Amino acid sequence: MMYQNFFKKELGRLRNEGRYRIFLNLERCANEFPHAISGNSKQEVTVWCSNDYLGMGQHPEILKAMIKTLKRCGSGSGGTRNISGNTYTHVTLEETLSDFHQKEASLVFTSGYVANETTLATLGSCLPECVFLSDEKNHASIIHGIRNSRAQKKIFRHNDVAHLTELLESIPSHQPKIIVFESVYSMDGDLSPMKEICALAKQYNALTYLDEVHSAGLYGPQGGGIAQALGLENDIDIIQGTLGKAFGLIGGYIAGTKELIDFIRSFAPGFIFTTSLPPAIVVGAVVSINHLKNNAQLREQHQFNARYLKKRLEKYRLPYLQNQSHIVPLIVGNAQKCKEITDRLLHQFKIYVQPINYPTVAMGTERLRLTPSALHTPQMINHLVQALAEIWDDLSLPKAA
Amino acid sequence: MMYQNFFKKELGRLRNEGRYRIFLNLERCANEFPHAISGNSKQEVTVWCSNDYLGMGQHPEILKAMIKTLKRCGSGSGGTRNISGNTYTHVTLEETLSDFHQKEASLVFTSGYVANETTLATLGSCLPECVFLSDEKNHASIIHGIRNSRAQKKIFRHNDVAHLTELLESIPSHQPKIIVFESVYSMDGDLSPMKEICALAKQYNALTYLDEVHSAGLYGPQGGGIAQALGLENDIDIIQGTLGKAFGLIGGYIAGTKELIDFIRSFAPGFIFTTSLPPAIVVGAVVSINHLKNNAQLREQHQFNARYLKKRLEKYRLPYLQNQSHIVPLIVGNAQKCKEITDRLLHQFKIYVQPINYPTVAMGTERLRLTPSALHTPQMINHLVQALAEIWDDLSLPKAA
Repeated sequence: MMYQNFFKKELGRLRNEGRYRIFLNLERCANEFPHAISGNSKQEVTVWCSNDYLGMGQHPEILKAMIKTLKRCGSGSGGTRNISGNTYTHVTLEETLSDFHQKEASLVFTSGYVANETTLATLGSCLPECVFLSDEKNHASIIHGIRNSRAQKKIFRHNDVAHLTELLESIPSHQPKIIVFESVYSMDGDLSPMKEICALAKQYNALTYLDEVHSAGLYGPQGGGIAQALGLENDIDIIQGTLGKAFGLIGGYIAGTKELIDFIRSFAPGFIFTTSLPPAIVVGAVVSINHLKNNAQLREQHQFNARYLKKRLEKYRLPYLQNQSHIVPLIVGNAQKCKEITDRLLHQFKIYVQPINYPTVAMGTERLRLTPSALHTPQMINHLVQALAEIWDDLSLPKAA
Repeated sequence: MMYQNFFKKELGRLRNEGRYRIFLNLERCANEFPHAISGNSKQEVTVWCSNDYLGMGQHPEILKAMIKTLKRCGSGSGGTRNISGNTYTHVTLEETLSDFHQKEASLVFTSGYVANETTLATLGSCLPECVFLSDEKNHASIIHGIRNSRAQKKIFRHNDVAHLTELLESIPSHQPKIIVFESVYSMDGDLSPMKEICALAKQYNALTYLDEVHSAGLYGPQGGGIAQALGLENDIDIIQGTLGKAFGLIGGYIAGTKELIDFIRSFAPGFIFTTSLPPAIVVGAVVSINHLKNNAQLREQHQFNARYLKKRLEKYRLPYLQNQSHIVPLIVGNAQKCKEITDRLLHQFKIYVQPINYPTVAMGTERLRLTPSALHTPQMINHLVQALAEIWDDLSLPKAA
């Protein structure tokens, strides 16, 4: 085996398929978001693909609290949660999250990815004869968690309640079952039929595991997510979320019953064997969550901007995927073309949108994933849509009917 | 299935075995480390189990750079490395790490755990017919990475070069092989026979994957780790490290050839599908690495303190595990007794050491893992050893021969 040749060959394959990823080198500027500096050209660009949906990543209250904590507690936690890395800030964050999602207890992880991976891997490997029922469009972290558990899994067609019923029906009633789904699917922006899934879970005695990473902080009267917006918090056994999107930081969490949280705390390797989040990050998260719990204004502006963007896209018959969320996917269906569009957006219009290719989305559904934030202005939205319309015409791309 | 009862039962089992973990709630105080405030009693304690080995977690240069970056760039990165979360700070950190380990390229992950898990899982699942040769005492993150790759694995007895040779001999020469080992084993503190392993790797055309999480920053003339100290950097294909221990922050990385790093960057799900580290953490890491590269003083003090602690333990015949590193394990061999000792250390002597139980170490080898830092004073070391001697006598624990 010539190892380096193997790696080279595999990378060549990606390049040939037009899906070799080149990361744009970006300089975020607090107070300026959604503007940023493109590291290569040093030009100011407008970011249209960030998950900092509410601009909390530059919120002065959060930055102030983080700076205070850095000065007071230092830069890192110095250990795992069990071995010297458990500070009062971590405990406070978990109490804050429990209250936020109206659950008995919570557990914080180093990322949303890790929260999904290690929680699902642990449940699936520990619950005897466990069967996962997983939506086919679930995130990579969910897929890997289920896979790594080595438990039995049944994949149901996306949002297809009839198919889920059929699969539940096929599993002996004594076997533990976990239905895993998301509230907002990150790449299509569509919502799951949560009420129907919860009813099925009750009927078949299945646990419900809900990924709210693209909705916590963004939906519901106190920002608790889609489950809160629909009044279904009590029907979800495990809510999973991230601190890296609406809350503007990094980290992930789950919320649920005391027993379940204590079980994951005690058995999940991705929780046990890793350095805990730095106190400054943790305190920033507490401030961010409390702010969004008590202020609906950014959420409302965010929804307004998403509706306004969609309306403008319609005017120019730009083919966006209809959904009820803030995620606005413009389907292109071809990796090379996606790259051509985003290159022109960047160089000609100073608009930064990263092309989304396989394996993030299925081949043939390559897209621009536009994420209007609460801080984009009507001028920015108009500028984006005009740029897209011009490129669409120039490249003779198909328009919406 | 009564889910909550199942969780309760499993937790009860842990409690009965004396290995239910209770996290001490700690308040870290910048400028005061290794002192901290115990969150429950609000009393000052001396921390003797932190991985902030050099006290970099409170270094003024790092805190200053982090505060500046928070003000300039905000709190979070806002996305994955590919989708708007790649800043110039991340690029600089990877260049800094490549230089630090004298490798062509580097890749930063959200944790050392993730670096190990996703790199090994990706290599093992992508390299056709790959076989891992893994030391039996490798860290949980390595074990899970190998396991999740589903590649073939052969576990060699701890540090046993003859056994490793035998296993290498048994694998057909065309099959890709990866020898995975650590430079300093975290719970015993012993070093691996790196030179012999590298020679074997060359002979059998195996890749070498070295975990330097407990040595990067701490050993070698420029802090590059044990590989650097032994002049073996060129013989290691993949060096893995953490930003959460000697460097005082959070995050992990690998360093290697351009092709290998680009391959992992392009294929590893735990890298691709997760929000990148916040710019402030990243900048703190750059400052920390550069500081330790150019200053050997903290490293020397650290080694001096470890030697002094061992000498003092010897005087009282306290049974520590001999090794060549800074990790000082005091073997107790019983979970309940471990807890009794650490409870007395905390309440009677205001010394915080977390008991180390299964699954972190094998049952029957439960221990106190003492980690002298560069900032512990001779007085603190004397106080610790006298406290231990008193408890050892009171509980009639076995002494060293």
